[in-house]
Amino acid sequence: MRAIEFTGQSIRMIDQSLLPHREEWIELRNAGEIIDAIKRMKVRGAPAIGVAAAYALALSENPGKDAECLKSARPTAVELSHAVDFMLGACRNGMALPQAAAKWEGMNSKRCRLVSEHGSSLVGKGQRILTHCNTGFLAANEHGTALGAIKMAHGQGKGVSVYVDETRPRLQGALTSWELLKHGVPHQVVCDSAAGYLMKKNEIDLVMVGADRIAANGDAANKIGTYTLSVLARENSIPFYVLAPLPSFDADIKAGDEIEVEERSQKEVLEIRGKRVYPQGSSAENPAFDITPAENIAGFVCENGIFRSIDELWESTRDPDSASGELLKSCLR
Amino acid sequence: MRAIEFTGQSIRMIDQSLLPHREEWIELRNAGEIIDAIKRMKVRGAPAIGVAAAYALALSENPGKDAECLKSARPTAVELSHAVDFMLGACRNGMALPQAAAKWEGMNSKRCRLVSEHGSSLVGKGQRILTHCNTGFLAANEHGTALGAIKMAHGQGKGVSVYVDETRPRLQGALTSWELLKHGVPHQVVCDSAAGYLMKKNEIDLVMVGADRIAANGDAANKIGTYTLSVLARENSIPFYVLAPLPSFDADIKAGDEIEVEERSQKEVLEIRGKRVYPQGSSAENPAFDITPAENIAGFVCENGIFRSIDELWESTRDPDSASGELLKSCLR
Repeated sequence: MRAIEFTGQSIRMIDQSLLPHREEWIELRNAGEIIDAIKRMKVRGAPAIGVAAAYALALSENPGKDAECLKSARPTAVELSHAVDFMLGACRNGMALPQAAAKWEGMNSKRCRLVSEHGSSLVGKGQRILTHCNTGFLAANEHGTALGAIKMAHGQGKGVSVYVDETRPRLQGALTSWELLKHGVPHQVVCDSAAGYLMKKNEIDLVMVGADRIAANGDAANKIGTYTLSVLARENSIPFYVLAPLPSFDADIKAGDEIEVEERSQKEVLEIRGKRVYPQGSSAENPAFDITPAENIAGFVCENGIFRSIDELWESTRDPDSASGELLKSCLR
Repeated sequence: MRAIEFTGQSIRMIDQSLLPHREEWIELRNAGEIIDAIKRMKVRGAPAIGVAAAYALALSENPGKDAECLKSARPTAVELSHAVDFMLGACRNGMALPQAAAKWEGMNSKRCRLVSEHGSSLVGKGQRILTHCNTGFLAANEHGTALGAIKMAHGQGKGVSVYVDETRPRLQGALTSWELLKHGVPHQVVCDSAAGYLMKKNEIDLVMVGADRIAANGDAANKIGTYTLSVLARENSIPFYVLAPLPSFDADIKAGDEIEVEERSQKEVLEIRGKRVYPQGSSAENPAFDITPAENIAGFVCENGIFRSIDELWESTRDPDSASGELLKSCLR
């Protein structure tokens, strides 16, 4: 299942802002429309945003100018930057941009499939897994990351069940629930604030989340609330894994405190589905991400495998025959 | 400001389920209507529920029968049970029930005023305080508990500012924001999942919450999400205080795992303000409370003062001249 398709003259994508109530495909004909869709969160999730950005440049009349607009559309997701740099590199090397974008999409699919495969091997029979935000095909275009691993473990007959954090303010838990319903994976939605209680009651065996950007030292930026889950998991001796393809790892950023955290509109908190829920006069703070320190992370799962330490993961990327070799040559510095 | 008023033949109360959009007073003429209002969360907060329950028995034609219905209307809030036992005791002693209920209300006001006073002394100049759920006059009828202390510190010119957790699923943060706007206390609403990020960024100096029931060992039941805040506060070396009048302390319950946690309707999670936000087919788990272990609590604030350990607090209740002496004689075993 894909969330984004290239038609040759446009891309078609599921408008995630209408889910889970309406599954509506929209057609975007140029870079400006795609940049707008990224900003309005019609497409969400670092890998899917990267794919959308690659096609935005394939459809652009001025790739140099649109490249900068794309990078600033969602500053926390590093994959967006990598996709843009990959496309600019392809352009310099004389590659046709539609072919380059298709290549990025193909590499993305392969990477996420490998992340899901490695991740699924961490899941034991009958385990109850907690996840946060959406990390399925909507977020990654085809295979997911954390949710990809969970769906694969379900497909392997492991009899898993999932606790889905609702993920205020944007309620991406509704997208995760929508995907899990499509795949018949047993799950329950819970308020973000209930995860701690469930962990303490011994009802969660494993936490699996994605990441928007991971610093050189292993600190991981992900949807607001992820840091909290990592602290609760450590407190309750529950393994906490971060699953992300290598373009989400950013060797240029030393530690988490250097990662820019997007502060989004107050409205996302003060209104729900367009309706004001707080009194007139109330204001809100709305950081979209937080930073999970590396010491709270039991392991990193990327296309090269499962790594208990971030240094081992970086070591794996130095092998040019690894799954990520081709990618690293083209876009990782 | 009061949330509940006795007219002689009925009680009038603000319908909290319509706040913060409409400030509507409803009139309840008998015990059945009040029990229904407690169940439907038109009145919320342990002390306010206790006051409503006392008046329910004052208006009851069959106090013995209604007493049982009242106790089961919101099982976690022990204050409800104490109010009912106090009224049954008054009945046995030949006291007129309307007078007894007025006495309970008066004792409740005095207790909460003392809790607020003691609590306000914990607040330093310019401190940024995080609170969860609603613990103001709506929850306590006149003076609040945690929010009472915060409002009092503001009134003392301490220049505080408040982070208000939105408190999914029922969004009691909207009530807290509504009260703080009325009192001109600077504040910002945040998603429950953002509190950890703010603590880690060093933007919170103090956490103050209420409690529905506190066990003999100091484990405290409070709105879902409180346990999480206590773990995050300890992780980030931020003092975490529980403020509650003595009827919320339950010497009959040894430890937190014996406290019954109410599991409320899935609808509270799956719908927001009457609108479904999750796909058809999704289900939810909705525990209304969680248990904060005593070791995460920097101090307990009750009408007798501030106590760094629960044993000191229990010791204080053995002094018959203490503020709680009268209450203890009548309802604490």
